[in-house]
Formats: sequence, structure tokens, C-alpha cells
Amino acid sequence: MTVAMTYDSKALYDELVANKLIIPTSVKGVFGRGAVFEDVLFHLNSKISRIAENDGAEVMLFPPTLDRKVFEKSGYLKSFPHLAGVVFSFCGSEAQHQDLVCCLAEGKPWAHTQTMTDVVLTPAACYPVYPSFTGTAPEQGRLVDMQNWVFRHEPSSEPTRMQAFRIREFVRVGTPQMVVEWRDMWLARGIQLLRDLGLPAESDVAADPFFGRGGRMLAANQKAASLKFEVLVPIISKENPTACCSFNYHEDHFGSSFDIRTADGAVAHTACLGFGLERICMGLFKHHGCDPLTWPNDIRDLLWG
Amino acid sequence: MTVAMTYDSKALYDELVANKLIIPTSVKGVFGRGAVFEDVLFHLNSKISRIAENDGAEVMLFPPTLDRKVFEKSGYLKSFPHLAGVVFSFCGSEAQHQDLVCCLAEGKPWAHTQTMTDVVLTPAACYPVYPSFTGTAPEQGRLVDMQNWVFRHEPSSEPTRMQAFRIREFVRVGTPQMVVEWRDMWLARGIQLLRDLGLPAESDVAADPFFGRGGRMLAANQKAASLKFEVLVPIISKENPTACCSFNYHEDHFGSSFDIRTADGAVAHTACLGFGLERICMGLFKHHGCDPLTWPNDIRDLLWG
Repeated sequence: MTVAMTYDSKALYDELVANKLIIPTSVKGVFGRGAVFEDVLFHLNSKISRIAENDGAEVMLFPPTLDRKVFEKSGYLKSFPHLAGVVFSFCGSEAQHQDLVCCLAEGKPWAHTQTMTDVVLTPAACYPVYPSFTGTAPEQGRLVDMQNWVFRHEPSSEPTRMQAFRIREFVRVGTPQMVVEWRDMWLARGIQLLRDLGLPAESDVAADPFFGRGGRMLAANQKAASLKFEVLVPIISKENPTACCSFNYHEDHFGSSFDIRTADGAVAHTACLGFGLERICMGLFKHHGCDPLTWPNDIRDLLWG
Repeated sequence: MTVAMTYDSKALYDELVANKLIIPTSVKGVFGRGAVFEDVLFHLNSKISRIAENDGAEVMLFPPTLDRKVFEKSGYLKSFPHLAGVVFSFCGSEAQHQDLVCCLAEGKPWAHTQTMTDVVLTPAACYPVYPSFTGTAPEQGRLVDMQNWVFRHEPSSEPTRMQAFRIREFVRVGTPQMVVEWRDMWLARGIQLLRDLGLPAESDVAADPFFGRGGRMLAANQKAASLKFEVLVPIISKENPTACCSFNYHEDHFGSSFDIRTADGAVAHTACLGFGLERICMGLFKHHGCDPLTWPNDIRDLLWG
């Protein structure tokens, strides 16, 4: 059955809210998830686990907060300062607390009462793992399977552009050949999974949203070197489909930053890939409707079978 | 079988690391979780779901970031300013970005380049839900089941005192009688679950860690009114057992703050209770050993059966 679809960001948001799939807040890009949304997300995530089950990945999970020193070392603030979230806290005296309480009571700014802490919000799901790789990787390299919350400071009323979301992430460490072959294998798996789920997925070379004018050149270089691929699905626009999976080949960036070496002593190359769990769920709701009980049987079997 | 146990915070931390249950970082209270840790946590959480399955709670999940306005309204900064985490970001020009990059390169402070955003870290698992209750509750009140990451700025090398952790949380809204009866039912359930898991759990009246000298009086009042209970398990100390479940009766605090009313028009009372998922897992590792395959059969059956 082919349904004539119109794409409209606000209409999708309103429909997700009306069906209690998301619970709105007054901040753009921050909302709760309802029971059905979480059920779909859980089974999608389990399906990815079944695809990966014979790969022998080491399972890890990291909290939404990351060591600030790791973040500073990663270079994120050079490329994406506008997207980062840094955690501040009150470290003052009782008198300074009185000032804070007065500012709040009078509706005045209170940022001056806050001090930078040792943590930031995890900006990308793979960042926490690299420091744990420092040293020499085993002969076959490393492979890690994670599911982390990430933060992006980009408030938007477009439902797929969230400030906080979950990524099912895999990270590979090894020689350039190992890393690129693995990336290509997962690129094919990612497209296949989304198409099996009835989503019109296509892959494309992509670039990260680098900051400023200098960033335009970085983005062009990244595209020219085919370092980033995305699997895209039309969710809020047919012309500008939404990245639902992202594949990043970092070459030796993290290997150099965190002193990670392959068994032969060379600086290790790394790649990561992530499934945007909320975005894929929204794609499913957009293309198959807001009630999973009415979805095509083959798609239900794939997720709940 | 009774094992003579010694309690030692550092020894437990080292054992959790050695068994890859947690993955250390250089920040106190922030660490990754390994595959076995996550497997125990998942099945513990599922067991709590089975206990709650006939209660008819509405399932929700909120991201680790909370609307700053909700946070300001909640009164958290009056009572616990030192534990809060506020998200700042870079909102400057390209020239200001150059300043940020220079500071980083020279190892200088860069807090001045950051601006307060509209979000904070979720300080307690129940906070995001109250604004969605504004208005009149149905006759039978409300009951919500959540699982959220929460943040506390209290760096500590004691493994159960984390900066980021997951709480399985239930929230009840209704008349004082409805709320207190529900709280008491779950207090009994919580003690029973932990004892069934082979943990020497005891409940006690408790107080929150209010800030400053004035806070001592608030804590004494809270205790005198029996507004907070905890279910405690010795994990790092026999004399100072660790709170693994927490039960808070807020009286009309959130009802007034977020204009929540019962069907008869009165200001609604609320209570919440949370299972500290990581802490209970650590209790299990402490009391039964770091390899779940060697745990007593009845406990394995309870979690994996």
C-alpha cells in the first residue's frame, strides 16, 4: 500500500505529542518519551544487538557526563564549540548562596554564582571510550558496543533535532584496512536494516557541522576524503532526509590524541558508527503510523518476533 | 553459608574495576559500566517491572537534561545548590572562538567563554514529570513509572557515590491518604525485594543533604515529620549502610509549585520512590561476589528466571 505522504515538521511533532509518543516540555529539543515510543526503541535496539551478536564486541555503557579533560583533548571545542554542553555547579559559601537565592527570587541572572566542574555532557557516543584504549591494542584490534545518551546544544522545534538523545554505537580500533572494511560492512548492514523496516533509506557522503567560516573548509575536506557517511531517511522533508545512522572514519585522530597503538606499534586508526535510536523510531512512526499494532506484519515480526 | 565480610570502599572499587564491572575514568564518581554490570542491572530493572506490572502506571522516560525553568521553580537551588549541574555552552562569535581555542592551547581557564543555557542536568528522577501534571488529576490520581539518569555534583572515590546514575522511579499524585498508602506499600515491596536478593536490607527515616547551617534545621524537620524513608544495605560500611531505595513524601510542595489539583479541587499531594539501580547492583556484587554465575540459585532464578 502506497500512502501519499506530505512532509511537515510541525505536523509530525504534533502527531507524536497527540499520540503520547513524546511528552513536550517548554525547551526546544527536550521532551519525554512515552511507553509506546520506548517499546519500539527497545525492540529496535534489540534487533541491532541480534545483527551484531556474532561480532564479538565488548559491551560498555557510559553515563551522560564525560571527563572534561578527555573532552578538551578530543578537539571537539575546536570544531563544534556551539554544540557542546559544559557542566557548571555552585561551589560557594553560605553568603554566596544567599545571593543565588535572591537572584532567583527577583528573576535576575544567576550564572555568576556557577563554577565550571570537571565534567561536560557527552558530545558523541564514542568519546568516553578512547582513554580506556590507551596503550597497545591486541592483534585483532578492538571492537566496542555501547549505548549512550549524547547532548547537542542546538535547540530546534524540529522533532528529529534533539538536544539529548540515545545512540547505539560501535567503535573499531585497528589498522586502516581493518577499520575501513568494518565500516563498509556496517554501512551495508545499516541500509539493509532500515529498508527491512520499510524505510526508504539511502546512504551518502556527509560532513559534520563544523563551526564558523573555517569550518566550511573542514567540511569540504571531510567530504572529499569520504570520511563520513550517513544513512538517510526522509522524515520531516523529502528533499533533506534525516541522518539515522552515521559512520565516521577518524583516521589516526583519536589514536594520536589518546596514544592508542596497533600490535605492530603504529598509531591505531579508529572508526565509529551510530544508530540514532530516536530518529529511527520517528522514521517508523512517520512511515507506518503512530500505532505499531497497525504496522505491516513483516515489520512487526522483525522487531517483536 | 555465612561469609565473614569486611567493608572497604577502595577494595570494592578495585574489585569492580578488576572484574570489568566498571570502567574507570580520571573523574571521581564517573565511570563506564561493563557487560556483566549492565546485564545484572537490566534484569534487576525487569524484576521491578514485574513487581509493578498490575499497578497500571503510565510509563515515561525523560532525557538527562531538564528545562531550567522547571528546575528554578522546583526549589532545588534553595536546598541543594551544591549538588546541581547547570549546562553552559559557547554562544559567541568567531573571534571569541579564537579566544577559547587559545585558552585551551595554553592550558588557561575558559569558563568565561561559556553562557548559561536553558537546560540543567536532571537532579532527581521525578522532577521532569511534574510540569506535565499541571491541571486537575483524574479521580484515582496519577501514577507514573520512569527510568532516568540523574546528576549529583559530589565527586567521591566511594563507588556507590556517583555523579551520574540511573533511578527506576515511581511517582504518585493524589490525596494525602492515597499517596501515603501507596508509599507504604512500596516501602514494604522494596525491603522484600532486596531481602529476596539476599541483601540485609533495613528501612529507616532519613533526611536529604540540605545545604549549609540552615539546612540542618530543614533536615531535622524532615526527619521529625517522617517525610523521607530509605531502604539501606551495607555495601561500603556496616555502620553507615547505603541508601538503595528512597521514598519521599513531598506533601503539597510540587502540587503548589506546578498547580496540580485533585478531582475535588484541592492542591494535590505527591510522593516518589526510587530504586538506585547501580547501588543495588553493587550491593549484589559485594554480598554475592563479582561473578553472577556463582550466585545462589534462588537469587539467579529471581533475576534471570
